Amino acid sequence: MSAVDTVFLDDLRAIFGDRFSISEALREQHGKGESHHTTAIPDAVVFAETSEEVAQIVRLCAQRGVPVIAFGAGTSLEGHLAAIRGGISIDLSRMNQVLRVSAEDLDCTVQAGVTREQLNIHLRDQGLFFPIDPGANASIGGMAATRASGTNAVRYGTMRENVLSLTVVLPNGTIIKTASRARKSSSGYDLTRLFVGSEGTLGIITEVSLRLYGIPETISAALCSFDSVESAVSAAISVVQLGIPVARMELMDRGLIAAVNAYSGTSLKLADTLAFEFHGSPASVNEQVEMVRDIVIEHGGKDFEWATSPEERNRLWKARHSAFYAVVSQRENAKGWSSDVCVPVSQLSECIVYTRGLLENCSVPAAILGHVGDGNYHVVFAIDPANAAEMDEVGLINKKMVKKAISVGGTCTGEHGVGTGKIAYMREEHGVAVDLMTVIKNAIDPLGIMNPGKMLPQD
Amino acid sequence: MSAVDTVFLDDLRAIFGDRFSISEALREQHGKGESHHTTAIPDAVVFAETSEEVAQIVRLCAQRGVPVIAFGAGTSLEGHLAAIRGGISIDLSRMNQVLRVSAEDLDCTVQAGVTREQLNIHLRDQGLFFPIDPGANASIGGMAATRASGTNAVRYGTMRENVLSLTVVLPNGTIIKTASRARKSSSGYDLTRLFVGSEGTLGIITEVSLRLYGIPETISAALCSFDSVESAVSAAISVVQLGIPVARMELMDRGLIAAVNAYSGTSLKLADTLAFEFHGSPASVNEQVEMVRDIVIEHGGKDFEWATSPEERNRLWKARHSAFYAVVSQRENAKGWSSDVCVPVSQLSECIVYTRGLLENCSVPAAILGHVGDGNYHVVFAIDPANAAEMDEVGLINKKMVKKAISVGGTCTGEHGVGTGKIAYMREEHGVAVDLMTVIKNAIDPLGIMNPGKMLPQD
Repeated sequence: MSAVDTVFLDDLRAIFGDRFSISEALREQHGKGESHHTTAIPDAVVFAETSEEVAQIVRLCAQRGVPVIAFGAGTSLEGHLAAIRGGISIDLSRMNQVLRVSAEDLDCTVQAGVTREQLNIHLRDQGLFFPIDPGANASIGGMAATRASGTNAVRYGTMRENVLSLTVVLPNGTIIKTASRARKSSSGYDLTRLFVGSEGTLGIITEVSLRLYGIPETISAALCSFDSVESAVSAAISVVQLGIPVARMELMDRGLIAAVNAYSGTSLKLADTLAFEFHGSPASVNEQVEMVRDIVIEHGGKDFEWATSPEERNRLWKARHSAFYAVVSQRENAKGWSSDVCVPVSQLSECIVYTRGLLENCSVPAAILGHVGDGNYHVVFAIDPANAAEMDEVGLINKKMVKKAISVGGTCTGEHGVGTGKIAYMREEHGVAVDLMTVIKNAIDPLGIMNPGKMLPQD
Repeated sequence: MSAVDTVFLDDLRAIFGDRFSISEALREQHGKGESHHTTAIPDAVVFAETSEEVAQIVRLCAQRGVPVIAFGAGTSLEGHLAAIRGGISIDLSRMNQVLRVSAEDLDCTVQAGVTREQLNIHLRDQGLFFPIDPGANASIGGMAATRASGTNAVRYGTMRENVLSLTVVLPNGTIIKTASRARKSSSGYDLTRLFVGSEGTLGIITEVSLRLYGIPETISAALCSFDSVESAVSAAISVVQLGIPVARMELMDRGLIAAVNAYSGTSLKLADTLAFEFHGSPASVNEQVEMVRDIVIEHGGKDFEWATSPEERNRLWKARHSAFYAVVSQRENAKGWSSDVCVPVSQLSECIVYTRGLLENCSVPAAILGHVGDGNYHVVFAIDPANAAEMDEVGLINKKMVKKAISVGGTCTGEHGVGTGKIAYMREEHGVAVDLMTVIKNAIDPLGIMNPGKMLPQD
């Protein structure tokens, strides 16, 4: 399948020395993400350190028609990293410099391999933060490439809203900047947004300029228990519809709370739960809390349990972020499979009820969680990929969830991306617009070397 | 130049009857916007009423290689509407239905010819509004096509952030929907953002889904006088950097205030001025006002003059929105030329000082105004397009402003678009990224029939 031969590999080794590797273990690690998808190992891994090096590798690959797959932190959940046609994995983790921070403009530029935790540690002393938080300590480049979002999106938006510009290596090795540093512009096609979410299929993101925010004067977090997932969701919908600017509003079902307590050693109350975080001035946070409290009580929720100190808050969100691993750890040698749909908020209750129905007789551990303020929710399953019956069972539930979401005007992926995992639903969601995506792909990557076999169906 | 012959026109007339016209006056009106750019009249105008009709016209034009130009409200400022290679102007003003409003999801879908004022009148009774406000009563389709923004963008973002999805007729007549109704998605290329700002060069936007917002509980507006444009800008920059969520923060220089008073019959105090609007709960608005007041005083601004009643506020913003016409009316038979740059906020003072220097000996009426919270500002000139010396003089000032903006990391157009007016600066701003834009254009519109001669340089 692969166009890679030893001469080509020798060429790369000659240029990159010990930053070139064909180690089996390393290639294996680079051919998979964190979920159940099948590993497909690349022919070699190269650790790039500059945009120019990435361009050099891409040019060499283009000359030989060799596939190129960008690798950041390896936290993909939809099979983006599988080298299904072989090729070169370009590891960007050494491109980990924060290149520029402007407190005046509330923006920064980082290399693609910088992780979100690294960035926030870097920013903290200047009173700034970058809010997009998908849970995993993903690379900023990877987050841009999958249009990631996570717990803060209800207030701060997703990578779509928070990437100002990108440096991208195109499939022919040209390096472009997608936009100026101006906050807004009407100058030409929105190349930034074209590459945000393009999953490495149009080029390789090597630098990212981001919007930053001042660390809020006041941050409060609280948990609130409900009698059912449905009441929790109804409360969340009311909060959205009243336009209350909560920073986080996360649903965790009872099963997830149990898994998290076991995994993280927390003692969260065992119930279907909404976790809130409020950002703002003291007065504004107070106001938000009062409004949300009224809504919660109206929907039968118990009063807030507060996590006010930074330590308590960190523990709470760390526990929340461990959800995927917590569910997976409920079973020995299991892998995680996280479904990921997003629907209009008005359709969320119906979809969650439907999903709970699907899970009633599910034979593997499964928990519902979600960024319900955006209409985005997940079921995390702990599965044994070697067990075909299980894979079929979970695959069917996933499929039904996706089809339901699309049928109510939603999307097959709210934040994880398409990769290989959602290709089958692209036509159903987008109709003939998929053909336009293919036109764009073929025009920009005529050789088809950029992360082939991902995102776009070959029908 | 044009591939239009009488047989083709007869075909269109046979289909569209009295919604087809070759009236000289009508064609003249469709071949220009509101600014100084040269008129270029289309061969015919067709009034379309559905997406399918638009598709039918586009298919016929594609068969004959005839250019197609979409026309909304005719408020373009950068020559977007000029039929410089002839062709058919598709007038969308009869596609003026609000198709759907969801208070639950805070979104709506409208036909492209709906104007922003019409939409807001439609929404008012439901307690909702659409904030993007470029001043002119533009069509929503046109606003999407130019990536418009205006006075509320500092808080609510631009069309980029507020368009959820589009229905688009592609150059081959295919009708696509660019996205689902989910608030966020990682599913495929961001076709929505590709068409937002594409200025009719990739397809024709026929329907637009938009984010809506609840009308704020409290709205207050205030004017504040400064001793100089520079102090006003410094105050504005501080407001941005402290993250105070003002809804509007508009700069009007002393000359503009004089022009507006004369044109609108207002009696605004003659001084370099910032106009603010605050949205939120009573407590939040109070808090914002207190913070802004402190900043204003620190920068030598006089205390606020309030416009608290809806009538006073409307009068204030109507006066502000008349700025373009107010400057132009200072001279008989003049046309307006509005420059439009956007720079990182940290560079705004320097650029404004530079611009004031350029205007010192300007021989025509000129005033500075801007959405300074975004780093976006304009000089409006009242010029006589027949006077070559004047055109050269203003053209040179405009050019210097643009080059300065680009040199400090800004853009040649913050919100008006490229059209024909900014083509000359695309290469300087975007470098080789312009070639990628051209690749995309040629792939999607291989016949080059969609609004030819706009946006992309032919170098």
